[in-house]
Amino acid sequence: MNQVICTVDVVLLTLKENALQVALLKRDREPFQGSLALPGGYIHADEDADARDAALRVLRDKTGIETPYLEQLATFSGMGRDPRGWSVSVVFYALVSIDVIGKSCHPGVMLSDVDRKQKLPFDHRAVIDTAVARLRSKSQYSSLPCHLLGENFTLPQLQRVYEALMGEALNKVSFRRKIAEMDVLESLEGQFVEGAHRPAQLYRLKQEWRDQPMLLERGL
Amino acid sequence: MNQVICTVDVVLLTLKENALQVALLKRDREPFQGSLALPGGYIHADEDADARDAALRVLRDKTGIETPYLEQLATFSGMGRDPRGWSVSVVFYALVSIDVIGKSCHPGVMLSDVDRKQKLPFDHRAVIDTAVARLRSKSQYSSLPCHLLGENFTLPQLQRVYEALMGEALNKVSFRRKIAEMDVLESLEGQFVEGAHRPAQLYRLKQEWRDQPMLLERGL
Repeated sequence: MNQVICTVDVVLLTLKENALQVALLKRDREPFQGSLALPGGYIHADEDADARDAALRVLRDKTGIETPYLEQLATFSGMGRDPRGWSVSVVFYALVSIDVIGKSCHPGVMLSDVDRKQKLPFDHRAVIDTAVARLRSKSQYSSLPCHLLGENFTLPQLQRVYEALMGEALNKVSFRRKIAEMDVLESLEGQFVEGAHRPAQLYRLKQEWRDQPMLLERGL
Repeated sequence: MNQVICTVDVVLLTLKENALQVALLKRDREPFQGSLALPGGYIHADEDADARDAALRVLRDKTGIETPYLEQLATFSGMGRDPRGWSVSVVFYALVSIDVIGKSCHPGVMLSDVDRKQKLPFDHRAVIDTAVARLRSKSQYSSLPCHLLGENFTLPQLQRVYEALMGEALNKVSFRRKIAEMDVLESLEGQFVEGAHRPAQLYRLKQEWRDQPMLLERGL
């Protein structure tokens, strides 16, 4: 039978000072021992229910992060990508706020600006670029960017996250209309934070949208 | 090490009398011998360059179809989907015209209307439903539907394909503006077919769009 190495890798993304960052770990074994790479590992057929379950386990064990939002990106495969042999990696991407990184992440986890295009082992550079392209393109018609914010946030904060991902300034009125159309947020009654001009209402994702994004047919 | 079965499956879709059809094959071995299922097979680490290459080989060997357009859909995995054990299937979908099916397909290939929701072994029902949802949602902002037509076609024929996929009538003027905006077609000089009112110009996909779809930021 075929000898194929089956792994999962996770592209864990966060936003720090409006720059998209990816979590990398120093590899503790060969191949590429000592190099920074994506958190990943073998599928454990005896304990993982499916590849998603394997990705959640790897992320939890290697970075300390338990994320409600994780989505399959694509599968990368072939004879050339891993020196150990023909391999398949089912890749997932996850989004978390920088607060969650600060609070829960293992100390060995490094953040790297995705636009720095750091050289990485395996095909991890291409994997990250694919994840970032998917996130940026999906942002314009989904609630995905909300997962980069903490539990509570204001609409101006949310708009800045969308703008950072889409790389363009958005019109405030049409942005707010789109967000209202998605109907994924609930306001926190009586809770405001100081804004540039006046106090800004705090919002959070409604319970049913915390582990899946809302998709719109028409984008921002 | 983990014992994981690595396979590829292909959802080969075509449009017959405006109904989307999927190609199924009678399985010639266990499990589910004799049942109709998607064309699929093991990855051959000794001959396939990657999973896409494996899918092209499986499609060619099992159905006779060589397609220029094949795209990764998603990977389906877990302990429950295949009675032989924990398995990973990297699934691809391909689009061909009904003429190609008629000309090149092996005689054992059966077409099944995707909306008939035929019960199938493994998780092939869910796989097909995922492929159809992807195609329908991607159709509205891409040139993907062109791959369901033969080499040459008229704009009214193309509009009917988009309408069949999107399940709604489209405005002719805005449809043609979107198609022009994509800039994926070239007219066949002096070649017309009889239309309902007057002869209709024949078009074909430009060379560079035959093995990849054009994606628009804003949909139809």
